[in-house]
Amino acid sequence: VGEDELVAAIAQIAGDPRGRVRLGIGDDAAAWQPSRSNRSVITTDVLIEDVHFSRSWMSFHDIGVRAMAANLSDIAAMGARPVLATVALGVPANVSNESLLECYRGLAETAGAANASIVGGDLSRSPVLMLSITVVGEVRLTNLKQRSGGFPGDVLAVTGLLGASRAGLMHLRVEIALPDDMAAEGLSAFRTPAARCAEGAFLGASVNVHAMMDCSDGLSTDVTRLARASGVGARIETLPVASSASVAAALLGQDAEAFALAGGEDFELLVAVAPRAFAHLSARFAARFGRPLLRIGVLQADERLVVVKQGVEEPLAPSGWDHFS
Amino acid sequence: VGEDELVAAIAQIAGDPRGRVRLGIGDDAAAWQPSRSNRSVITTDVLIEDVHFSRSWMSFHDIGVRAMAANLSDIAAMGARPVLATVALGVPANVSNESLLECYRGLAETAGAANASIVGGDLSRSPVLMLSITVVGEVRLTNLKQRSGGFPGDVLAVTGLLGASRAGLMHLRVEIALPDDMAAEGLSAFRTPAARCAEGAFLGASVNVHAMMDCSDGLSTDVTRLARASGVGARIETLPVASSASVAAALLGQDAEAFALAGGEDFELLVAVAPRAFAHLSARFAARFGRPLLRIGVLQADERLVVVKQGVEEPLAPSGWDHFS
Repeated sequence: VGEDELVAAIAQIAGDPRGRVRLGIGDDAAAWQPSRSNRSVITTDVLIEDVHFSRSWMSFHDIGVRAMAANLSDIAAMGARPVLATVALGVPANVSNESLLECYRGLAETAGAANASIVGGDLSRSPVLMLSITVVGEVRLTNLKQRSGGFPGDVLAVTGLLGASRAGLMHLRVEIALPDDMAAEGLSAFRTPAARCAEGAFLGASVNVHAMMDCSDGLSTDVTRLARASGVGARIETLPVASSASVAAALLGQDAEAFALAGGEDFELLVAVAPRAFAHLSARFAARFGRPLLRIGVLQADERLVVVKQGVEEPLAPSGWDHFS
Repeated sequence: VGEDELVAAIAQIAGDPRGRVRLGIGDDAAAWQPSRSNRSVITTDVLIEDVHFSRSWMSFHDIGVRAMAANLSDIAAMGARPVLATVALGVPANVSNESLLECYRGLAETAGAANASIVGGDLSRSPVLMLSITVVGEVRLTNLKQRSGGFPGDVLAVTGLLGASRAGLMHLRVEIALPDDMAAEGLSAFRTPAARCAEGAFLGASVNVHAMMDCSDGLSTDVTRLARASGVGARIETLPVASSASVAAALLGQDAEAFALAGGEDFELLVAVAPRAFAHLSARFAARFGRPLLRIGVLQADERLVVVKQGVEEPLAPSGWDHFS
């Protein structure tokens, strides 16, 4: 089959859950009807083989799931709802068309679960597998959350446990050997992370959420970015660590919280919440999602960034991955 | 410098000519205000080193110009105006930060000349240079042009001469040696093509333009796609060939029109126009743009695709590049 036949097969996999797409795959561009009263948001991420992932670590289906989830997470972190996605794929000659379509199924299922359609894209030969995804979302102006909205005194909180993705990655890299149940938790977090779309929309709708972003680069880096953008400092007092991350840290002889701080790609949302509203918001969050909003610390006027370990403040060092340092 | 410093330098290069961007580079996603009465359109293209271009063929600045122009052309081909772009770059370690910023300058200048802003993107290490660009545009619903709108009897026309880009590419590949003036024309067409944004908006506003697309994959492939999408046949009667393409064809001992038919990446627009309106539309086009709309043939009820050579009809064979055949 040639490119036109592959594109036709891909178009069959892509759906239109919202019925908003006027013109999808197959023309020069796709067209849609933006909603009248909303702002639009857009994000792009690129995943490159042997930089961000290895084909030996996961199925083609899961490569698609993970790539789409990373982009949906950025939209959720704005308080927005995803609407559509485009997918540019660079495909080595040693990837079969069936594997390529399997990757698209992972992409389309993950987008569809968030009510978003894949409306177009590009296919090219490439020396390594490469996925570049763009997602467009929509949000009421009053619900749009930035990193820069935090105030001194705000409670810092996250939507879930941290560190499991890093534990799964270290298991895949054979840097540690996790027991089966812990390996399952870590591998699932790494291979098929869930973007917190419903949580992002819920938190975006609260005026008491002053700032929001996703935990994609490691919590220490992410907290640093949110605090710097807001012109404040931060004090991390406690960290909710996933079981697999605690076990991984123990195997490495490391502190569990330090392991989770350096994590990355957990795709939980990090929020700064008005302190008097936090208890109520966390209870409402728990009623809606079956788990609490987890307090990790506070923003502070003092511009230092610190983490409290056994009662002692230590400087918070950004420890996420920097491709260009 | 690290990634955050590079992103800050990139944010300075990106502009906001329309003043519509609410939140640009630096958050999880960028935000903008879509216009109320329009449809939105979106397109994505990926350019990969040693697949689509070679660093030895052009400057980093021109790599950026060409990549952005290819995407703007897809938006123009819908009758739409570009609004914003995102840029995902995969960058090998042997590309200096200054070269990377030079590439961004090419991207931003080209977007800015079409009144579009670069609002976000992603940066990653990569084994080869890779640019994945997404452009969002806007169009009145009545101006949205698809490939599928052509009717039997419609005049097929293009917005400019064809084949120069292919002549430039063959010169770069040292498959031919063009004389200096012809080399300059071909190299300019290949390295710094102009997207026909103003032409696309003009043609989109005419109810007599029934179908439109850009000539990016070679005219024989593009005419085939437009005719098939419209459920009709096509007869190509004459081809406007760029001087450099004529010289290149002569050097190869080939027919100039066949050379131009196989071209690709000329980024002229291909339109199907109501026959009775063509003369008037072409005159108005010439008054506005200083050159005529060039008639190349007709769509026909007979579903054959043919090209007339010295009075004899030959089958039109799609000859563009197919990565997956």
